[in-house]
Amino acid sequence: MNGNSKAITRETLQSYLDSSPFIRFLGLRLDHMDPDLMELTLRMPARAELLRGGAVEQFHGGPVASLIDTAGDFALIQLVNGPVPTINFRVDYLRPCAGIYLLAKAVVRKAGKTVGVVDVDVVNDQHCLCAVGRGCFGMVQG
Amino acid sequence: MNGNSKAITRETLQSYLDSSPFIRFLGLRLDHMDPDLMELTLRMPARAELLRGGAVEQFHGGPVASLIDTAGDFALIQLVNGPVPTINFRVDYLRPCAGIYLLAKAVVRKAGKTVGVVDVDVVNDQHCLCAVGRGCFGMVQG
Amino acid sequence: MNGNSKAITRETLQSYLDSSPFIRFLGLRLDHMDPDLMELTLRMPARAELLRGGAVEQFHGGPVASLIDTAGDFALIQLVNGPVPTINFRVDYLRPCAGIYLLAKAVVRKAGKTVGVVDVDVVNDQHCLCAVGRGCFGMVQG
Amino acid sequence: MNGNSKAITRETLQSYLDSSPFIRFLGLRLDHMDPDLMELTLRMPARAELLRGGAVEQFHGGPVASLIDTAGDFALIQLVNGPVPTINFRVDYLRPCAGIYLLAKAVVRKAGKTVGVVDVDVVNDQHCLCAVGRGCFGMVQG
Repeated sequence: MNGNSKAITRETLQSYLDSSPFIRFLGLRLDHMDPDLMELTLRMPARAELLRGGAVEQFHGGPVASLIDTAGDFALIQLVNGPVPTINFRVDYLRPCAGIYLLAKAVVRKAGKTVGVVDVDVVNDQHCLCAVGRGCFGMVQG
Repeated sequence: MNGNSKAITRETLQSYLDSSPFIRFLGLRLDHMDPDLMELTLRMPARAELLRGGAVEQFHGGPVASLIDTAGDFALIQLVNGPVPTINFRVDYLRPCAGIYLLAKAVVRKAGKTVGVVDVDVVNDQHCLCAVGRGCFGMVQG
Repeated sequence: MNGNSKAITRETLQSYLDSSPFIRFLGLRLDHMDPDLMELTLRMPARAELLRGGAVEQFHGGPVASLIDTAGDFALIQLVNGPVPTINFRVDYLRPCAGIYLLAKAVVRKAGKTVGVVDVDVVNDQHCLCAVGRGCFGMVQG
Repeated sequence: MNGNSKAITRETLQSYLDSSPFIRFLGLRLDHMDPDLMELTLRMPARAELLRGGAVEQFHGGPVASLIDTAGDFALIQLVNGPVPTINFRVDYLRPCAGIYLLAKAVVRKAGKTVGVVDVDVVNDQHCLCAVGRGCFGMVQG
């Protein structure tokens, strides 16, 4: 029902990620996808240009927000295999985002005809919850 | 009243921006500051790594969100001359963010003892409103 | 361009407000409308059932949120003269909402084919900014 | 750790709810509380004044937003047994909110020294997910 006729592979999703210069810069990797459960996880490895600066190495909030937006987007893209423009999203920063990578775990809360809503939890390599996001996306009609 | 005793110069604010690896990557420039009116504008020039990909050159939503977060942050930093961690923020994308640069115009709506709230409008070089943001920031006590 | 062919009167807008049992309970009154400027203001008079309780008389946050949602909605309804379901909205409470009435001043930031975005400032009878809201609404096709 | 020394009973929490004229009007009932798991559920029974109007009986979005705000607030109040002012919250409406009652299930995502963040799911008596909310609250120091 969620676009099984449009089944999409891991390789295709990763190629979509890689086709965007900014996402390629962030180095986002598809960690997990599950169209049936409507879940998807992206991984963002630490990299000097993504840090906020200061004594302690932490991801800047900008890459964290970008990771959330992209994870939400791709959780829906795996369902519809088409463009899913972000309408809006919100990020709450809970704890310092430090670690050798961050994982963004996206769960679709609604996949409607015109709008999708996705929750995204961001954890670090220590499984610490660093940030939470919620996005609203447009489900473009083919 | 808003920290005049802690008056801060353009050069200092720009040096704070430059001290963050991610903000330096984004290339953010202080365009305008006004602590009395509690307004501040940042400029983000186009750059290949900031684009979303596709036939039409547009900024990816991630840099736009990062620009909004940072502009809101610095609108308050110019008042308190100290760290102002983002608590949360929201971005609404209104129109394609295309152009040779984007401007983020931040206006402080509240600068309280514990929390500040800032509105940010993002326009391109054609003065087209591309995105709007609203952030909530922690006013750290010195 | 924004539905002038569907011009709507103050009386019609107020009748829409009055047709909703909950809005009637809140006692919302159309204070100002301007489809050309895409602005609209609603008034909510104080009433015992709308207070939060406690020593100082203040509006509870719930009626303030409801006022924001409704003002954003009607700023778009005056343009399209049809139903405009709320997709999502955010409220930031800035200062205690005390006064003999509150005014919600809505300004449309985008009135697109599928989505509209509206900013709403809430002030009290002393012109004090009490809360700010931003809503995203579905522009239903006729 | 979360204020066990300030343990609070169901009766006390319900009395806090009842002490607010607006919450009393909404008729909110404490359905479930669990300070250890940092979860709390409120129930809002249908009532004519809470409806949106129209052919199909649905809750107006305003009471749904108010329910979300209050459930988030009380999920933290059960931890600190003191006032927890709402800083901001967001509501996404997913499906029509129809039913003889709504349940708001709040889960604390962060209970920090200055700020708490709570997620709230709203389901109806058919267990249908109608709306989701996320709030940020101030943790007042005693």
